[in-house]
Amino acid sequence: MIRTDLAMEATAAYGAEKIPGVDIINDTVSEGINRVRVTISSEEGEKAIGKKKGTYVTIEADSLAYGDTDTDENCAKALAEEIKSMAGSAVNGSVLVAGLGNRMVTPDALGPAVCDMVFVTRHIHEYAPESIDERMGMVSAISPGVLGITGVETGEIIEGIVDRIKPSLVIAIDSLASRNLERIRTTIQIADSGISPGAGIGNKRKVLDRETLGVPVLAIGVPLVVYAATIAQDLIEAAMDKTKTNKESMQKILGMMMDVEGADMIVTPKDIDKVVKDLARIISDGLNIALHKNLTLEETRRYMH
Amino acid sequence: MIRTDLAMEATAAYGAEKIPGVDIINDTVSEGINRVRVTISSEEGEKAIGKKKGTYVTIEADSLAYGDTDTDENCAKALAEEIKSMAGSAVNGSVLVAGLGNRMVTPDALGPAVCDMVFVTRHIHEYAPESIDERMGMVSAISPGVLGITGVETGEIIEGIVDRIKPSLVIAIDSLASRNLERIRTTIQIADSGISPGAGIGNKRKVLDRETLGVPVLAIGVPLVVYAATIAQDLIEAAMDKTKTNKESMQKILGMMMDVEGADMIVTPKDIDKVVKDLARIISDGLNIALHKNLTLEETRRYMH
Amino acid sequence: MIRTDLAMEATAAYGAEKIPGVDIINDTVSEGINRVRVTISSEEGEKAIGKKKGTYVTIEADSLAYGDTDTDENCAKALAEEIKSMAGSAVNGSVLVAGLGNRMVTPDALGPAVCDMVFVTRHIHEYAPESIDERMGMVSAISPGVLGITGVETGEIIEGIVDRIKPSLVIAIDSLASRNLERIRTTIQIADSGISPGAGIGNKRKVLDRETLGVPVLAIGVPLVVYAATIAQDLIEAAMDKTKTNKESMQKILGMMMDVEGADMIVTPKDIDKVVKDLARIISDGLNIALHKNLTLEETRRYMH
Amino acid sequence: MIRTDLAMEATAAYGAEKIPGVDIINDTVSEGINRVRVTISSEEGEKAIGKKKGTYVTIEADSLAYGDTDTDENCAKALAEEIKSMAGSAVNGSVLVAGLGNRMVTPDALGPAVCDMVFVTRHIHEYAPESIDERMGMVSAISPGVLGITGVETGEIIEGIVDRIKPSLVIAIDSLASRNLERIRTTIQIADSGISPGAGIGNKRKVLDRETLGVPVLAIGVPLVVYAATIAQDLIEAAMDKTKTNKESMQKILGMMMDVEGADMIVTPKDIDKVVKDLARIISDGLNIALHKNLTLEETRRYMH
Repeated sequence: MIRTDLAMEATAAYGAEKIPGVDIINDTVSEGINRVRVTISSEEGEKAIGKKKGTYVTIEADSLAYGDTDTDENCAKALAEEIKSMAGSAVNGSVLVAGLGNRMVTPDALGPAVCDMVFVTRHIHEYAPESIDERMGMVSAISPGVLGITGVETGEIIEGIVDRIKPSLVIAIDSLASRNLERIRTTIQIADSGISPGAGIGNKRKVLDRETLGVPVLAIGVPLVVYAATIAQDLIEAAMDKTKTNKESMQKILGMMMDVEGADMIVTPKDIDKVVKDLARIISDGLNIALHKNLTLEETRRYMH
Repeated sequence: MIRTDLAMEATAAYGAEKIPGVDIINDTVSEGINRVRVTISSEEGEKAIGKKKGTYVTIEADSLAYGDTDTDENCAKALAEEIKSMAGSAVNGSVLVAGLGNRMVTPDALGPAVCDMVFVTRHIHEYAPESIDERMGMVSAISPGVLGITGVETGEIIEGIVDRIKPSLVIAIDSLASRNLERIRTTIQIADSGISPGAGIGNKRKVLDRETLGVPVLAIGVPLVVYAATIAQDLIEAAMDKTKTNKESMQKILGMMMDVEGADMIVTPKDIDKVVKDLARIISDGLNIALHKNLTLEETRRYMH
Repeated sequence: MIRTDLAMEATAAYGAEKIPGVDIINDTVSEGINRVRVTISSEEGEKAIGKKKGTYVTIEADSLAYGDTDTDENCAKALAEEIKSMAGSAVNGSVLVAGLGNRMVTPDALGPAVCDMVFVTRHIHEYAPESIDERMGMVSAISPGVLGITGVETGEIIEGIVDRIKPSLVIAIDSLASRNLERIRTTIQIADSGISPGAGIGNKRKVLDRETLGVPVLAIGVPLVVYAATIAQDLIEAAMDKTKTNKESMQKILGMMMDVEGADMIVTPKDIDKVVKDLARIISDGLNIALHKNLTLEETRRYMH
Repeated sequence: MIRTDLAMEATAAYGAEKIPGVDIINDTVSEGINRVRVTISSEEGEKAIGKKKGTYVTIEADSLAYGDTDTDENCAKALAEEIKSMAGSAVNGSVLVAGLGNRMVTPDALGPAVCDMVFVTRHIHEYAPESIDERMGMVSAISPGVLGITGVETGEIIEGIVDRIKPSLVIAIDSLASRNLERIRTTIQIADSGISPGAGIGNKRKVLDRETLGVPVLAIGVPLVVYAATIAQDLIEAAMDKTKTNKESMQKILGMMMDVEGADMIVTPKDIDKVVKDLARIISDGLNIALHKNLTLEETRRYMH
């Protein structure tokens, strides 16, 4: 079984492009930025790929978060386009950004880090409407913490808040697990099928989706951890390719690798502090573009001060 | 008008010990640790002191958070005693600790810091009841963030969560403003009259109390900031005492000091990082003692690992 | 005695503009940015002001570090001009930036924070000369820590490193004490007379200057703390002005205020975390402009990635 | 070629126990704590193992840094014993602790984190000798930063400081690379053969040893990162064992795995923040026991306050 939270990795692994009800479109957003759109519309597709029905868009750039300001801003803009396209008119209402994950564990801190950089305006509409620039959206942002730290399921906290503030859209941000170390810092996924807090790294919990929250839910995820076993698989497959080894003969060993001790360890690059910080900046820029009409990033940063 | 969140400072300033419906009891908890219990039971008392009806206990120790392990542990125990005494049997039910304040602003980060160190067990009761030691209470802990960061009133978030998890008791932790720089790192106040998130440092907002939440609410507060004007008042009064100046003659100047530019600046000691860390440890120790019956602090720390 | 590390405050307090050998020039750098240049050239001036002979330039802007990108960049450029003007050709050689102060105490962490953002290139010249863009200067940056943490005088550490790497210029960055809370986040001082690590906040130690290090030493300082007594003095003086009180009559009280308990407490604004971060960005921008010829800030940030 | 900084892993990999001039002794320190002492005394041994002549002691405990206070303290004591045994009388003189690594990159931040918790006393001897308890040693501690951040080789900085303060012993602390993910948080190595700053994670640089510094140098290292390729090798070997595959037949593939893309990525566990904090506490406890005679850890912590 492939361990990945990325629909595009799952489809690649299962040759899913041939399954009815699974559509895959690749295109180029701008120089150096690719986009893969996986649409799952059948139950057969759901089962084959292990992902719920919906649309999963992956924005990829080799030079993402490597100091190339143009690439980073183009990715933020591409993300903003997808948010607006998936959310439709809900993006113009009250939007709640939910930063999932644990602020104290670096590779799990992406969601809270994004919340810290989103331009929040809901309270200005309420308490200082005279300060509202008409281009400002209505945005709130919560980092509820994780079950092990709060003792309360993330889903319950978000539901409680949604009950109170009645947003028109929830956008959840979370870290993901990928099957490929090199995907870390190159990929952002956005999906409209909901999210299970903690599913990427821990166990499955209460799902946040349109059904449970009563409003559309977008999930933005970034691969930041990899299972040790998938690293080993990738390296051994690359070595088999180079040595022209017959893969059939190795199936037994490859299959066993998932079961040996240490296979389920989760690892992360050693410079993960910087990776999280840079990607949080790109995602929050994307949110600020999507949720505030025609405010420039410069203006947004100035307002946030 | 005296700017202080401490009932004992307010009573001292207004000579409130003579007001009907205001009782003040001083005693010694253990060597070097004093306790002041202010009880306000009349409306006359409410108005005179500017605090709501209820009990306000201040635990004070000059050597608090100065590396004296015995004093720190004795203060934690004294705090635990007050929590149990004020909460009654509610302490044995499901307790929600709410860490108010802004994690990113050091003197306002006490609440979140306490939450990080409270031994949280509600999810263990729910998902792994077989791991429950019968001495463990049922504790959850949330740091909801502040209005300017989330766009949602702290009170709304807490209400939403209380609606979901139905605790028997809420304990809110917050930073306070005092009128005296030297009270910072020496004083912990616990009260049963509720709390207004942000009131210590910003504007008054929705109150968290038994009326709004439907369950008893204790508030634990620690003075961590001081208004510039109160520092000036204290120093000038001390100087007047030393120079035997007639205070009457100075009333006009002292009164005006509150209105000059800079008077409302809020300051904090320069080693505030360390003060917050040390006091958060003492308060979370107190909570862990009160909420988990007969677990030693050592056991609690081991469990939390 | 006036407690301030700013020459311009000291001269103002002592009416020093009339002292022979003390020159004071005020001008405007650009809109909203003022510059005060104090030159002390006589021993009489040294004694009167309590500062060593040399040039002290203060760059001031009310809206500094308040999110006004233009003001911040103009201040960085003005700082760069002063560095180049004071250092002369030494700025083109090997430059050692020394970030004084304690990384763990927020208002004392400015120096280390600046070092983290300076574009360091000395090692590239040495180990990867083929990667050198001819516009890059030769820059190294050390944060030696403080005496209480290292057990070694900052001066000894800097001397040891200067002996090894033989820079042509040392630029030391440190937090300062000011006599006015409102000067915090509005003022940057640059001086060519050397610096005493820890002098702003603790006791006087070994001086870093041309005499002790054998190379020119510039000191960049920013007021981040204030003594409680000076706050009180300012507020009471403002109150006396408003009430038209005769100041003569108050001299005894004002004099005594320095001696009462609490007067020597050092305080800082409650949002000091943000102030330090913003000012460190402005100062490191100024250094990057001065030390790397014609590299834009954008290019510098890209290289540093 | 095996990539590991642990002598015990290198000897195990090369069957080095049969090489003349290589001695390996295993014993048990206390319950659950093992010790492996590798002594390399011949050039043949140096070449076979790829480590310099000297003694390398590894202290291992499965439950290290898992909240078992007894194990942690026993490890700290075992470390203190080795320090005293390797350093001899030099431990009673002036000791400089050098925290190598980069404070900003979590798995590389062990050295600076240890320095923050070592009880530093050299300045007390010098400036406040009346406060010296005769049981206090003479300790200083420096975290010089890394080449990419300072522009100066760590070796040069340490040499400059050693020239100035003339210690009798240098103890360097650094993160290591191991070939086994599971060794992370279970192992501490101490060696008397010197250390190359950055060698574990980057390129080899100037060595810190008795020859270059003129005083004995102990190196304490903890595995905190692993190369992706070694994870893969371990898992595939475990899988081969389970499937009883002939290892000879796989040599070509295993050999090639080091050369495929991604093999040299360095990874770390996702909870590395906590691992570094816990191990820094254990190592600093060990240093405080070794360098201060008969001071209890409790007393040390109180002094450090």
